[in-house]
Amino acid sequence: MFSIAELTDFPTHLASAAGRPVSPSRSLLTPLGLDEVRIEGGFWGERQELNANAIIEHCEHWVDKMGWVDNFDAAVEGRLPSDRTGREFADSDVYKLIEAMAWEIGRTNNTAMDARLQALVARIAPVQEEDGYLNTHFGRPGQGERYSDLQWGHELYCYGHLLQAAVARGRTVGDDQLVQIARRAADHVCEVFGAGGIESVCGHPEIETALVEFSRYTGDARYLEQARLFVERRGHGVLGDIEFGRSYYQDDVPVRDATVLAGHSVRAMYLAAGAVDVAVETDDEDLVRTIIGQLSETLAKRTYITGGMGAHHEGESFGSDFELPSDRAYSETCAGVGSIMLNYRLLLATGDSAYADVIERTLFNVVAASPAADGRAFFYTNTLHQREPGSIPSADEASPRASSSLRAPWFEVSCCPTNVARTLASLGSYLATSSDSGLQIHQYADSTIAAAVSGGTVGVKVSTDYPVHGLVRVEITDTVDGEWELALRVPGWARIGATLTDNGETRAVEPGAVSIRRAFAVGDVIELSLPMAARWSAPDPRIDALRGQLAVERGPLVLCLESTDAPGIANVNEARILTELLDRTDEGEGVTVAVCAATLTDGGWPYGAGAVVDNDAPVTRAALRPYYSWANRGPSTMRIWLPVVGSDSVVPA
Amino acid sequence: MFSIAELTDFPTHLASAAGRPVSPSRSLLTPLGLDEVRIEGGFWGERQELNANAIIEHCEHWVDKMGWVDNFDAAVEGRLPSDRTGREFADSDVYKLIEAMAWEIGRTNNTAMDARLQALVARIAPVQEEDGYLNTHFGRPGQGERYSDLQWGHELYCYGHLLQAAVARGRTVGDDQLVQIARRAADHVCEVFGAGGIESVCGHPEIETALVEFSRYTGDARYLEQARLFVERRGHGVLGDIEFGRSYYQDDVPVRDATVLAGHSVRAMYLAAGAVDVAVETDDEDLVRTIIGQLSETLAKRTYITGGMGAHHEGESFGSDFELPSDRAYSETCAGVGSIMLNYRLLLATGDSAYADVIERTLFNVVAASPAADGRAFFYTNTLHQREPGSIPSADEASPRASSSLRAPWFEVSCCPTNVARTLASLGSYLATSSDSGLQIHQYADSTIAAAVSGGTVGVKVSTDYPVHGLVRVEITDTVDGEWELALRVPGWARIGATLTDNGETRAVEPGAVSIRRAFAVGDVIELSLPMAARWSAPDPRIDALRGQLAVERGPLVLCLESTDAPGIANVNEARILTELLDRTDEGEGVTVAVCAATLTDGGWPYGAGAVVDNDAPVTRAALRPYYSWANRGPSTMRIWLPVVGSDSVVPA
Repeated sequence: MFSIAELTDFPTHLASAAGRPVSPSRSLLTPLGLDEVRIEGGFWGERQELNANAIIEHCEHWVDKMGWVDNFDAAVEGRLPSDRTGREFADSDVYKLIEAMAWEIGRTNNTAMDARLQALVARIAPVQEEDGYLNTHFGRPGQGERYSDLQWGHELYCYGHLLQAAVARGRTVGDDQLVQIARRAADHVCEVFGAGGIESVCGHPEIETALVEFSRYTGDARYLEQARLFVERRGHGVLGDIEFGRSYYQDDVPVRDATVLAGHSVRAMYLAAGAVDVAVETDDEDLVRTIIGQLSETLAKRTYITGGMGAHHEGESFGSDFELPSDRAYSETCAGVGSIMLNYRLLLATGDSAYADVIERTLFNVVAASPAADGRAFFYTNTLHQREPGSIPSADEASPRASSSLRAPWFEVSCCPTNVARTLASLGSYLATSSDSGLQIHQYADSTIAAAVSGGTVGVKVSTDYPVHGLVRVEITDTVDGEWELALRVPGWARIGATLTDNGETRAVEPGAVSIRRAFAVGDVIELSLPMAARWSAPDPRIDALRGQLAVERGPLVLCLESTDAPGIANVNEARILTELLDRTDEGEGVTVAVCAATLTDGGWPYGAGAVVDNDAPVTRAALRPYYSWANRGPSTMRIWLPVVGSDSVVPA
Repeated sequence: MFSIAELTDFPTHLASAAGRPVSPSRSLLTPLGLDEVRIEGGFWGERQELNANAIIEHCEHWVDKMGWVDNFDAAVEGRLPSDRTGREFADSDVYKLIEAMAWEIGRTNNTAMDARLQALVARIAPVQEEDGYLNTHFGRPGQGERYSDLQWGHELYCYGHLLQAAVARGRTVGDDQLVQIARRAADHVCEVFGAGGIESVCGHPEIETALVEFSRYTGDARYLEQARLFVERRGHGVLGDIEFGRSYYQDDVPVRDATVLAGHSVRAMYLAAGAVDVAVETDDEDLVRTIIGQLSETLAKRTYITGGMGAHHEGESFGSDFELPSDRAYSETCAGVGSIMLNYRLLLATGDSAYADVIERTLFNVVAASPAADGRAFFYTNTLHQREPGSIPSADEASPRASSSLRAPWFEVSCCPTNVARTLASLGSYLATSSDSGLQIHQYADSTIAAAVSGGTVGVKVSTDYPVHGLVRVEITDTVDGEWELALRVPGWARIGATLTDNGETRAVEPGAVSIRRAFAVGDVIELSLPMAARWSAPDPRIDALRGQLAVERGPLVLCLESTDAPGIANVNEARILTELLDRTDEGEGVTVAVCAATLTDGGWPYGAGAVVDNDAPVTRAALRPYYSWANRGPSTMRIWLPVVGSDSVVPA
């Protein structure tokens, strides 16, 4: 075990694009790697530490316990298919875990973890066949034939995660055995699915973005071309029809023709991310614009206030526009990860800080909500309204994927824990970017940032306890001769009251990227102050499920009412808020509101005259706390959207 | 083809319990059979005619087209499993169709249909094995072993529908080949699953209620005992765990311990119906009370205003209490059929007319909503809010089960069309009951009713165009010496304004069964007048998805706003109603309301200040029409619950 305080220096062998999960050859903003941005503490520092000390180890334990690593040994020892465990895509969770470990090793030079990673890779390597094929679920006697089930088989999806793991490894320690395995797999994919090969795609997108990144890493344009083929083929009904319909895996409408993200949310996000990657590398401005349009529509009409995506449990999919029921929110953790992937790529491509706003919202209210405080249980889905307390899942068994009201240690479909792990390990890269003209800081955390700009390297130290308070202090630690530009993101939610102090002068700033262009000296301090008073949010009138309800947000955090914090109210389903009594003082991350319990008429039939409002219902005060932190204190009920007193329907006189 | 006008007399060989889908050996009210209650026209007469002339024939066409009848031939000819088509339970739809045909033949003596039924049965008979086993999906080389998959295999479910078909046949034409097949199957089930046999149950309840009815029909108590065993075994985790959890098939909690209906809605309804049957026959008052409690809770907290049940598409299941989103209503047609089965059994057992209220609501707003006006397309699910017009399903292909916004001709899982067909064919039996003391009329339709009472047979002719108007005229056509009691149901919705006229005297009557006890003479007329003015309904405040919305009901009909009837409003998602302008005149089945379109601010993010209300939005008048009739005029959007002007959330000043 080690702590943040014991972090060693970064490995010195990091090459160009080192430590970067995404590294476009052309973009408006240049990403920074894990060697350039180091999170030193605070909200995200604590979570990176949790990842290092608990989450990754927990994932290692469970992929082993579930037999998903043994699947590789079983392949070598001829014990397949009889000894295989897990779903078709079980291999991929081992790869996502390896990716998380690779970033973590790159970030902290954790040699013990490095040994474990190498041991894992050594068990995978002998499973790869002569021609590069690698999968424990297909191709052996008694198993389905290779690529016989592209709809559900996930073979290319598994390669995708293998390639992303290899990129993480290559950009931290360099070409090792994992990279070699990935290269053979990627060559195999191009061989089999390239021009003249199988004219189809994978039921679960992922290979697209992975191939582009692997192309960026290796410099081999063949992988990019293969990704382009996959993006272009999709949507023409190349996969079979299924009960969910082809929209489930985005094979109903070509990527270029779709106007909004639809179908399975994670698939939609991964595909869109891959399409942006292809578009950026092939100078396809039309395609970038198309994806921007799809995302804009999705954010305006199909996204929860948490940033969560996916309104349907059935098909884990997007619903219709404005169909966003709180109590049936699917909002899969992995769709949040996918949304961050997509928004980050568009941030790099366009420089528009609105994408960083979405990343912030999703990080704090989806990704941070998934792991339990101890890092050993996870939400797969992230509901906005928990009606029943539910029971605590077994700490010893994998859970069905979405039925629990409390975090579960593992799932039969366990994409979320490893996705959280790889995101947290590589999080530094999402904080800031650079360009010739300067440095852009997008996410605020205690951190040190170094970036190459025209004329040399600039460095800053960011000090803040954001999001507890809104003060972000940026101290210049390294600079270059002459002017350069420091840009700070003012979040979209900070509509009124944000200020920037530079050189003793304070000025009001508005949402967007606020720039200071001047010559900086080491020791110069710039302060951004964000307004952290709690604020009401009202829903678009077309979201029927939220009529008469308000949410409270504070800074980037969506707050919620958990029954644990509402003594005197049996469960949050009956709570009503009195809006005039919101305590807007800026203390800690929470806020206090006045609530009362609705007077309920428990009749035999729930449709009639409507609410019997008791104006004398006792009013109590309840703390709203950050959504990410809920369900850490035993079974409870919870809601983000709070009915306002007087909003209940009554039959007109 | 034949019409109602050509109906012949009933077959004369009908025995006791003749023509009755349900015939308890002991009950407060005695059911009447198809020979005793004849629907002569009006709303339900038209639908019985549609069933006779279109729906049944349509179902015959499709079970053939889908290859589900050929499965039986393939079994005989050794072409299984290679030639088998359809899901595990495909046999059951042939059986449900045969049940519908049997009731229809019993009702109308349709000899052509009778020949077709016999031909179908003749193709099934040779598939039955020596020991009574009968299923096209299991037991042959290359197929799963018998009863190797009780969770999903549906073998006992298929027998259940076979037995119900046999009861229909037996109670209309008597013991024929179908009854003999059913008897051998029932014996086989008792042999294999009886005491000392397989200690388990079927993943889909149905065999329970079917075995009890078959026991009632045959007089063989062994079948009742087997049903009792199935009811008692369930809920103890005898089936394997599945991704949906054991609650999906009610194997998580014993029937006696459950306090509300939960899990897969159709399964829950069928199981509860079977439990009532077992309880009634075994004098188990506790069990009847338990089911009454479960149903009461379900009606109060888990039922849509249409009577529809099932809030989750995922698992086709009940949600939590008050989790009833309009736009994700599953409300499966078959769950409505199951609800009618359950409520009818409790009506017979308790005499409480509230169960007839539920039957009426469900018949008009679920069962009648499923078939298209031409009887050749069906809703599998019955949403309460259609957000997107959608496209018209192919008239030539089976649809996925629940994805269409318009009725589809057939489904891969096609329980609904045949369930509608068997319900409509046997509908007469649901209209009235008798007891020693007299006759009880529960559902109003143009009909003739005859019933044995103490001292002989009484008869009435009911004339009404209900639900267009609220006047129900009951003329005595046959009577006995001395007093007897005529009871008429005043629906629960007729809280104010219902009157009963007898002997020239009119009096106000309240919801419940209203009785007239006297000596009647042939030609006496009693008139019930029900208040048909449209009325507002407001939801229980705990149904968050309906806050700020009202529905309009008229008599037993739930009305809806269909975009077709709202010129000037792009789609119903944007409609707001002005409650003061409801036209409450009693004309036809519909009603006119004033609506306007909400002013919408299409921003990039749907959470902020909230609604921008335009008080000058043009007001238009739109007709609300009966929900059952929607989606018969091309693609449209539709909603039952209408947002009230001023109900949209705004951020407090």
